[in-house]
Amino acid sequence: MDEHALIQTYFSDVGSAYLAEQDVRISVGDDSSIISLPSGKESVVSVDTSIENIHFLDSMSPEDIAYRSVVVALSDLAACGASPAWYSVALTFPEFDEIWLKKFSDGLRRLSDDYRIPLIGGDTTKGKLSITVQVNGYCDTGQSILRSNAKPNENIYVSGLIGEAHKGLKSLTGNSEATDGQVESYLKPKARIDLGLRLKGIASAAIDISDGLLQDLKHICEASGVGAKVELENVPISFNDIPSLAEINSGDDYEICFTSSPKNESVIEEISEELGIKITVIGKTNNSKIVEVFDSEGKEVPVESGYKHF
Amino acid sequence: MDEHALIQTYFSDVGSAYLAEQDVRISVGDDSSIISLPSGKESVVSVDTSIENIHFLDSMSPEDIAYRSVVVALSDLAACGASPAWYSVALTFPEFDEIWLKKFSDGLRRLSDDYRIPLIGGDTTKGKLSITVQVNGYCDTGQSILRSNAKPNENIYVSGLIGEAHKGLKSLTGNSEATDGQVESYLKPKARIDLGLRLKGIASAAIDISDGLLQDLKHICEASGVGAKVELENVPISFNDIPSLAEINSGDDYEICFTSSPKNESVIEEISEELGIKITVIGKTNNSKIVEVFDSEGKEVPVESGYKHF
Repeated sequence: MDEHALIQTYFSDVGSAYLAEQDVRISVGDDSSIISLPSGKESVVSVDTSIENIHFLDSMSPEDIAYRSVVVALSDLAACGASPAWYSVALTFPEFDEIWLKKFSDGLRRLSDDYRIPLIGGDTTKGKLSITVQVNGYCDTGQSILRSNAKPNENIYVSGLIGEAHKGLKSLTGNSEATDGQVESYLKPKARIDLGLRLKGIASAAIDISDGLLQDLKHICEASGVGAKVELENVPISFNDIPSLAEINSGDDYEICFTSSPKNESVIEEISEELGIKITVIGKTNNSKIVEVFDSEGKEVPVESGYKHF
Repeated sequence: MDEHALIQTYFSDVGSAYLAEQDVRISVGDDSSIISLPSGKESVVSVDTSIENIHFLDSMSPEDIAYRSVVVALSDLAACGASPAWYSVALTFPEFDEIWLKKFSDGLRRLSDDYRIPLIGGDTTKGKLSITVQVNGYCDTGQSILRSNAKPNENIYVSGLIGEAHKGLKSLTGNSEATDGQVESYLKPKARIDLGLRLKGIASAAIDISDGLLQDLKHICEASGVGAKVELENVPISFNDIPSLAEINSGDDYEICFTSSPKNESVIEEISEELGIKITVIGKTNNSKIVEVFDSEGKEVPVESGYKHF
């Protein structure tokens, strides 16, 4: 099967129900994809490459690999408060396997349905399994949430529970125990799109914490020129009374860490209730330009950096 | 060096001189890149993955690998008549090598200068060398050149010379001879952006012929519901009086094949002169829905398909 036929068979109709809704005029099948642009909006773009046994397990189903590869990119859009519009997939795979490709494209179909976005193009090449996804979303012009606008004396929040996905991952790769929910957190993560959309005008800065809570919080601090004081015991985990540094910094959590003025406390509580998403204050920004963690007795806990890519 | 520092060091300033010109508000360094959208335009998007020893030679310099990886994607924009605006690069590489990365980013810098477009984001991951580039351009709304609007009884044109890059490639991988220009055609291809921009409203359909002239012409025919009759002796090559099928279909030519009504013959000649680009009529479209090739005696030459990806 040549590349043209392969793309026609497995990818040309993925999310095609959402082409009109997202103003995509030409998708898979021409030299380029062509998208009509909304007025009064800005484009929000993120790219993520997922590689076998680094970003996903080779034991995972092709559906889950496909789904997860797109969610990790969508999570960056969530952190910017963007509404997803479309995505492209550059897929490198070792050999033509009809069943695998069918399942992989089924995973993309599920993703398209869950987020109402079409696949608009991409590329297929031969090699070690690797998936590069680019997602495109829109925000009202100037309304995207950046990393760089946190101010001192703001609350630092985190969505959901931390460390769940890592618990799930450990149970998949070893013999440690995990709940179904924890395994699901790793295999089928969710991008916090709805939360990001609600945080516009409320969060001063935001980031997704897939690389580890403290490392990603550090990025907000560096970009905003502020420091942070995190209360370890306030970081929400499900499996210990008081979390360890390693547990809160284990990565793979597609949750949002954000900062917001204390005056927004009650509206953030309302958002949390409305969306059914746990949102917890874990600390405060300050003028120090460093990230410090304190235990329940007020003693400083030495901080290592989060997940290193190289 | 962690990923954040690596991106800051080698990639954060690539093409940054063109950020304002292309209305990019946030580039490398936040969760997502943010681009203000022009009004009255549509987005034109293309994605290409380049893999070592399939799409480029491992003997090539990092500068040339980087440059070539972006041009192959820009060539698709050229075929749509789009003006390039920005690009992202997802780079997978085996190990941290400061000199290699510096040279690779120099290649991107050269590309950014040549096409006046900034690098706006991407991803870096560890693995076998592979580069996925997404390029974004704009056309006036509804003006992009598609594959699907060719009509019967139009001229079929091709830009430049065919088979040059393949000659260059063969000399790089074996001991066959090639001119410096042919080697350059392979190592430092050019995307025919200026030509694409001038063909809007003139070409009824267009495609870049990187997969091989006949295979790519077949895509125009399929998408437009027309057939094509190609005169082999009219296909412009530099190294034979009469080209062979293999020579015109060797791939790696980042030239444009397009169709246009005979009434546009003189304006196309003018464009050719103005841009200093050879543009040749190689055949005619018809109602047959097949691509046929004829030799100088009017005898049909059996056609094989072009380069197969799998």
